Amino acid sequence: MYKFCFGVDLGGTTVKMGLLTVDGDILDKWEIPTRKEEKGSMILPDIADAILKKIEERGMDKEDIAGIGIGVPGPVDSEGVIYKAANLGWDVFNVAKTLEGLAGLPVKAGNDANVAALGEMWKGGGAGHKNLVAVTLGTGVGGGIIINGEILTGATGAGGEIGHIHMNDDEVDACGCGNKGCLEQYASATGVVKLAKKHLASSDKASALREGEVSAKTVFDAVKAGDSLAKEIAEEFGMYLGKGLAAIAGVVNPEIFVIGGGVSKAGPVLLDYIKKYYVEYVFHGSKNAEFALATLGNDAGMYGAAKLIIQE
Amino acid sequence: MYKFCFGVDLGGTTVKMGLLTVDGDILDKWEIPTRKEEKGSMILPDIADAILKKIEERGMDKEDIAGIGIGVPGPVDSEGVIYKAANLGWDVFNVAKTLEGLAGLPVKAGNDANVAALGEMWKGGGAGHKNLVAVTLGTGVGGGIIINGEILTGATGAGGEIGHIHMNDDEVDACGCGNKGCLEQYASATGVVKLAKKHLASSDKASALREGEVSAKTVFDAVKAGDSLAKEIAEEFGMYLGKGLAAIAGVVNPEIFVIGGGVSKAGPVLLDYIKKYYVEYVFHGSKNAEFALATLGNDAGMYGAAKLIIQE
Repeated sequence: MYKFCFGVDLGGTTVKMGLLTVDGDILDKWEIPTRKEEKGSMILPDIADAILKKIEERGMDKEDIAGIGIGVPGPVDSEGVIYKAANLGWDVFNVAKTLEGLAGLPVKAGNDANVAALGEMWKGGGAGHKNLVAVTLGTGVGGGIIINGEILTGATGAGGEIGHIHMNDDEVDACGCGNKGCLEQYASATGVVKLAKKHLASSDKASALREGEVSAKTVFDAVKAGDSLAKEIAEEFGMYLGKGLAAIAGVVNPEIFVIGGGVSKAGPVLLDYIKKYYVEYVFHGSKNAEFALATLGNDAGMYGAAKLIIQE
Repeated sequence: MYKFCFGVDLGGTTVKMGLLTVDGDILDKWEIPTRKEEKGSMILPDIADAILKKIEERGMDKEDIAGIGIGVPGPVDSEGVIYKAANLGWDVFNVAKTLEGLAGLPVKAGNDANVAALGEMWKGGGAGHKNLVAVTLGTGVGGGIIINGEILTGATGAGGEIGHIHMNDDEVDACGCGNKGCLEQYASATGVVKLAKKHLASSDKASALREGEVSAKTVFDAVKAGDSLAKEIAEEFGMYLGKGLAAIAGVVNPEIFVIGGGVSKAGPVLLDYIKKYYVEYVFHGSKNAEFALATLGNDAGMYGAAKLIIQE
């Protein structure tokens, strides 16, 4: 029986690393910089070094270690092959095998959003569930889908890429992906700002949002303060996201949606706006899905990465 | 090693039954009526009787039989519990355990659309793939999703209920499910007729469709004959279905879509209209998904039911 494992959350700026027990207790947690020079060729050697140093420092026995799980910002297939991570300078290669060779420990790799979903299932807002959809409302909209306790990777690692579901035929602005009318254009932090600017421009209503810079935070703060224009913005946000999650439920029929990312800091009021439209548009068989806020914050990826390797 | 299995496709009028080898060769195929009287209480005893008679008739050894797989017209969870099948008069109960008790053989039960998807993966249009979405364009729009070779059942057996994904905010007619603007209202056989009637009423164009009764078949026959109004109808059909399948791909990122049901008899031209809009709306990570026509017709459910029990 293994006692320990490493969870690694590889981001564009820093690598979050954790040493955990196989029960999910964090024993150690630290960060190293993500060195993107030289096409990111130093990233995995840096990670392997940090882990091997930690093992030495603590006088650990490699036999006690289940291995390393790693979440990566790009599409990863079930074998651990990444299909480009522009953000890191990476092209197509097998992340899992490469890190396995460098560290001399078993490695499992997954997409960061999917891995964070697994973390929320294990120790976060989705604990106790085996079928969940995690939704990350950050700069973009990310997703991770867990079916029977396992990540839905998809044929080319694009499973759970829910931010680019088409929602609006009338959109004129292009999404980062090149399409027009993607969910991400309305339900991300930048999407909320986009909606806010539209409402501010098309209405004469007084609003706290007319002073200072508008952000997802100022919008939902204003909602909580009873600002009527802010509530209209939140309604449109909820309409797009509720309708999008209803479509997702029509495909995977999850037990629970776990909502995280910066926008989710607005708290329970956010869920109210989403649920209102979700129940309106969803097929009755999925009407009773639960909604919860993510609870692990920036640690979700580390927990999920650890879980990835423990599962095997 | 087991040699044989039974595949049962339980429909509202007849029960299609098959005796197969574990390699999927059909040795015998027959039907019995579905007796819906007495709240459908005679249906499973009838099926058990038919199977036991077949075993006796052929002098088979029960030890050689893997068991019985059965597809049922209603939501079934992974334990074999059905959550009502109004069509059969059935309330909530465990179909698999009940039939197991009656027949003295292991039983696995699944939703009929899901089971048919498994059949198309095993022996039909999706052979060679492990991640597929089967779409049945019949009176309604049904779906079955296979992930890593297994049915995606969902939390309450509503996985793959893609016919009720919301597609159109402007719809005034209600769908059978009670919502308005479901995919099924445009992409089913009745949906195509609805679209046809709309185009016929709003245009003065000459069309073969102005004579006789309009059906999905007459529409696509007219498309093949070069009828310009029929082509407009097919475009709108393709727009709704292509956009719907793009949303599904944004969730599960399948290798292939397998299109079956009565409407699919139109043949490859149907796929052209769907793919045209699919690639327009889908996230680039899923752009290369394949499209194929289902090939097993009414036998898909029987094959898939058999596969259900062989997998275990």
